[in-house]
Amino acid sequence: MKALVYHGPNDKSWDEVPGPTLIDDTDAVVRVDATTICGTDLHILKGDVPEVTPGRILGHEAVGTVEEVGTAVKNIQPGDRVLVSCISACGTCRFCRVGRFGQCLGGGGWILGHNIDGAQAEKMRVPFAATSTYPVPAGVTDEEFLMLADILPTGYEVGVLNGSVSPGDVVAVIGAGPIGLSAITGCLMFSPSHVIAIDLSDGRLEAAKQFGADITVNNGREDPLAIVREITDGLGADVTIEAVGVPSTFELATQLVRPGGHVANVGVHGKPAILHLETLWTRDVTITTGLVDTYSTPTLSRLMATHQIDAARFATHHFRLEEMMDAYEVFSNAAETGALKVVLTRTV
Amino acid sequence: MKALVYHGPNDKSWDEVPGPTLIDDTDAVVRVDATTICGTDLHILKGDVPEVTPGRILGHEAVGTVEEVGTAVKNIQPGDRVLVSCISACGTCRFCRVGRFGQCLGGGGWILGHNIDGAQAEKMRVPFAATSTYPVPAGVTDEEFLMLADILPTGYEVGVLNGSVSPGDVVAVIGAGPIGLSAITGCLMFSPSHVIAIDLSDGRLEAAKQFGADITVNNGREDPLAIVREITDGLGADVTIEAVGVPSTFELATQLVRPGGHVANVGVHGKPAILHLETLWTRDVTITTGLVDTYSTPTLSRLMATHQIDAARFATHHFRLEEMMDAYEVFSNAAETGALKVVLTRTV
Amino acid sequence: MKALVYHGPNDKSWDEVPGPTLIDDTDAVVRVDATTICGTDLHILKGDVPEVTPGRILGHEAVGTVEEVGTAVKNIQPGDRVLVSCISACGTCRFCRVGRFGQCLGGGGWILGHNIDGAQAEKMRVPFAATSTYPVPAGVTDEEFLMLADILPTGYEVGVLNGSVSPGDVVAVIGAGPIGLSAITGCLMFSPSHVIAIDLSDGRLEAAKQFGADITVNNGREDPLAIVREITDGLGADVTIEAVGVPSTFELATQLVRPGGHVANVGVHGKPAILHLETLWTRDVTITTGLVDTYSTPTLSRLMATHQIDAARFATHHFRLEEMMDAYEVFSNAAETGALKVVLTRTV
Amino acid sequence: MKALVYHGPNDKSWDEVPGPTLIDDTDAVVRVDATTICGTDLHILKGDVPEVTPGRILGHEAVGTVEEVGTAVKNIQPGDRVLVSCISACGTCRFCRVGRFGQCLGGGGWILGHNIDGAQAEKMRVPFAATSTYPVPAGVTDEEFLMLADILPTGYEVGVLNGSVSPGDVVAVIGAGPIGLSAITGCLMFSPSHVIAIDLSDGRLEAAKQFGADITVNNGREDPLAIVREITDGLGADVTIEAVGVPSTFELATQLVRPGGHVANVGVHGKPAILHLETLWTRDVTITTGLVDTYSTPTLSRLMATHQIDAARFATHHFRLEEMMDAYEVFSNAAETGALKVVLTRTV
Repeated sequence: MKALVYHGPNDKSWDEVPGPTLIDDTDAVVRVDATTICGTDLHILKGDVPEVTPGRILGHEAVGTVEEVGTAVKNIQPGDRVLVSCISACGTCRFCRVGRFGQCLGGGGWILGHNIDGAQAEKMRVPFAATSTYPVPAGVTDEEFLMLADILPTGYEVGVLNGSVSPGDVVAVIGAGPIGLSAITGCLMFSPSHVIAIDLSDGRLEAAKQFGADITVNNGREDPLAIVREITDGLGADVTIEAVGVPSTFELATQLVRPGGHVANVGVHGKPAILHLETLWTRDVTITTGLVDTYSTPTLSRLMATHQIDAARFATHHFRLEEMMDAYEVFSNAAETGALKVVLTRTV
Repeated sequence: MKALVYHGPNDKSWDEVPGPTLIDDTDAVVRVDATTICGTDLHILKGDVPEVTPGRILGHEAVGTVEEVGTAVKNIQPGDRVLVSCISACGTCRFCRVGRFGQCLGGGGWILGHNIDGAQAEKMRVPFAATSTYPVPAGVTDEEFLMLADILPTGYEVGVLNGSVSPGDVVAVIGAGPIGLSAITGCLMFSPSHVIAIDLSDGRLEAAKQFGADITVNNGREDPLAIVREITDGLGADVTIEAVGVPSTFELATQLVRPGGHVANVGVHGKPAILHLETLWTRDVTITTGLVDTYSTPTLSRLMATHQIDAARFATHHFRLEEMMDAYEVFSNAAETGALKVVLTRTV
Repeated sequence: MKALVYHGPNDKSWDEVPGPTLIDDTDAVVRVDATTICGTDLHILKGDVPEVTPGRILGHEAVGTVEEVGTAVKNIQPGDRVLVSCISACGTCRFCRVGRFGQCLGGGGWILGHNIDGAQAEKMRVPFAATSTYPVPAGVTDEEFLMLADILPTGYEVGVLNGSVSPGDVVAVIGAGPIGLSAITGCLMFSPSHVIAIDLSDGRLEAAKQFGADITVNNGREDPLAIVREITDGLGADVTIEAVGVPSTFELATQLVRPGGHVANVGVHGKPAILHLETLWTRDVTITTGLVDTYSTPTLSRLMATHQIDAARFATHHFRLEEMMDAYEVFSNAAETGALKVVLTRTV
Repeated sequence: MKALVYHGPNDKSWDEVPGPTLIDDTDAVVRVDATTICGTDLHILKGDVPEVTPGRILGHEAVGTVEEVGTAVKNIQPGDRVLVSCISACGTCRFCRVGRFGQCLGGGGWILGHNIDGAQAEKMRVPFAATSTYPVPAGVTDEEFLMLADILPTGYEVGVLNGSVSPGDVVAVIGAGPIGLSAITGCLMFSPSHVIAIDLSDGRLEAAKQFGADITVNNGREDPLAIVREITDGLGADVTIEAVGVPSTFELATQLVRPGGHVANVGVHGKPAILHLETLWTRDVTITTGLVDTYSTPTLSRLMATHQIDAARFATHHFRLEEMMDAYEVFSNAAETGALKVVLTRTV
């Protein structure tokens, strides 16, 4: 079969490789009907994720059709349309028992396209298939449901739920890329009074408006602190969500939050940040970090089945699976192409 | 009357001053029967708290007898024995309405011995008396109840409750001074499996043992990370409580915590700390800061009434009110004197 | 002034009575700009609420203008437009300290138009004014804000929050009168996947649709259990909200709920119900009851200020204050008139 | 092998039967080292549980040694000492994914000694072994750990956690049998101010005292309502736990609770109860029911490993496995024998 193979920093290709087979009796083999590319894949390609070794098939997001299941997989069967989640869950370890699948100690967590071969391929092996796949509801397209593989639960769990977004809240979302927009999508489920999107790109801020932010701030030329204070009687935002991943935006998030508020970090950080405890110590703030667990997938799936989440709008560009290299090109140049998510689908 | 007056950095004296009177109809005047000195008072005396201006009577902890109440104070009356809490609550602002009295926007918060005259005096004016005093239960001594004025609710709310200490948890408490020992006292109410006290002083660690820590670590010569990992299958503590207030101990707290765990900062910080988001971003940690609100005072009061909190052991040294200068001397030299809390009581 | 006076069962009139004055220093006198009639007022008029004695002015919902405040009231002043909430809060008792104002032990709770004179009058005395009134935000009409005096917080707190309505939930609301419609309005703030309204009146079910229920069931001729099971894989609703107040609807609520689900009682009951513990004991259900506390008024106020709650549609009929008797006539015959809330406003 | 076989109402015997074998690849076969008898077994023997058919081996509580595991069981292996929990969990269904194992839709839940053969035997087949067994910590005896198979998690989850027992609470536990005593044991982990045990038997009340209740009430001759009100300023208990299972004790539980309090039903009910909504509707009560899920087993296991739960005292009578019929005799006559739990252990 064909797959996108990592050959080392800045070196990838769409190669002919052997197809996957069942290794463990908890595995499934899934034909990939739709897949996509994540910002993390770009990090890997820069060589920033050393666990990923040359020869690895990348990708951790797919919707596909089950072709084969191991003997221990009872809840899905060949022919089923399933989501393959970015997080694999052994289902039995201490963390899986409490729904914290991202921290799985039994061989799961984020492993697809990382420690084992992934989803940017014609077929893929899915470990722990019984606890790591989700049925696609009737009436939902592959493309829509694909957004549940990573970005939507990430924004929802790590941003919105960790941040305890509640009705009437003023929420500031820093960063309006796919994850920030997912966080905005999730915030709106809880009826905040204001969602303020903060970004350096006017194009992204325009997208944020379309996704439901009612206030946008270009922090290259506007002062987010002044704007947030103005609409909060000088107190600050109830919740700030960091969706960029650099020290300055995290520090901004801690500055914008009101006493008693929440800072939810969603961004992927490569460097430490400064925590201004000399002012924060009295301010009753709660700061959270987190890798997505995907425990919210059933909830989001239900809302997708009733068409209450418009996931299709994340898919700005469409490709056939074999156009993978072109899709990477478009996604890597999001600033120019305006790409949010590129979707690659199987052609019969 | 006599009171301890701040005259500027490193300058205080036990002076004759005019007695307090009712200013607002929500005030009470309370005769101080027992008071104490807080680490914060020492900070003030170093000149580190610029809002405190010369002429200010210090102190924010008292048990006393109501002498007079304003017309709007209905729930206490002259002759009542009451706790004067370190936090004053206007009772009507946004934050007071949700029990976050420490963030009071209506003129309360920490004001005693800070913005207005305080408790190290023969008498004191207590603003917002209806919502800032608590009756002393029968059978509880002034000295015991005095520990509810600040340290016990601080350790309990900002350490234990913010940290979500739960049965079976492994809790690491960094710093075994009065606040750390209060946090240990509070932890034990939730039946942790282990309480690990970490400090540089063997004397304080010995106190921690007496207060109920089952493991002590002198981090001057032992490695807390190795010890915590050994008893937690390498994962880290469920909760870490920072009760020192310097960058290195905060950073240690974030290092010792397990994935999914809580870091509760209680320490008073004067400088920023480094937050290692490059490792923490995936670890699902929750970090909290906070000023005490004293919303837990009724709970702790009930446990004191049934003698389930042994508060008397915090009182290592006793003085008469007029020996205030000696008490400061002993408390300032806690390393030598072993002072936890010094208690000053009225003599008839 | 003029006011609606209760003279005993089935006897009321719009009488000339002495105007209110300040009695306590925590009182305010408010000119009533808009008021309304509650189902509870009809209960009182039937003689079902024996604490209400002849001579009492009825009504517990108003928006008005402050005319005078007692010396202890600092946060509002003459001229302010305020909501007078159905719940008065002393602000200092055990329950008020934790936001459970409906259970106030200090003389508050539901007292207006009950233990003391109420809101169906040209002016009213408001006790505990500092903690029992709320400012009307700019851009919100008296009529809209009036819905915050009782029905909206009741549906939201006692129905939605007690029921823990969450994104993706299937919620069944039994009873589509003003309170049921308030509960539906509140549910939608949390993005349920389905809201099922159940009632015997097609007119009310039609209103429920307009308020956002996506499924309606006339339980006079349809089987709610079959319908709920069909859309929940046979499990039952995540949350059921009882908004009628008779034994059979409460029992239906406990029958419709799924294992692990919530039953929130909002209805006012005059008789006991049967609790089928022989089936419920294994089903992990949570059943809640409650009187409104109005702790959510600031949240709902913020959402009203941003026009995210359409409260105006509750006001089906409008009257001048002096047309009070006519308004009672229309409201008492809601089955024919289709009245949800009748609004009475001051004429200059 | 030998096992206790149910032959129909009032008919059981210790029979020679074929030993168990692996049926599914998720099974284990476990040698029973210690087992016990539950009140539910007595119900079955009366014929009250129609799903149990003649020929069934009873019992749902064991500590044993793994003899064989199916190919899908990776986390335990032959030779391991394990707890076999009363609840089996498929690990993949909707309810298991959120820790609500008692409601398992995948073939688990309470099945041992109910729908399939159970634990009162020399060996047993354990389905879903990876998610339904728990390792016995070093230093804990079989007998102690056996109490985690059912009674301790039942009292803790369904009584204490559902009831939200918190520090300082006044808790009334109705029924001082093994489950009531387990609830008392669990309550004490949260430092209540008072635990009031209520029972008709002085012997059981004496046991309750030894387990830590500080107040006991024989409701055959004392008035629990008067006693609870006396120590709660007339308000009622913060939490009441029903551990009997008849209508009158449930109704008592709803009567004893304070406004805003919790009623946690743990008792097994055969008949409906009356719910006095005509008084409860305004009292903000939360009533919960539940079957144990055993999600708390790891927590309780940790506390048992550190000897913070004294489980041995539940074991009032000891037998060899082959004395099963004698053990039933003693346990069935608990009123005379004073039996709490009878423990049967394997003899070499």
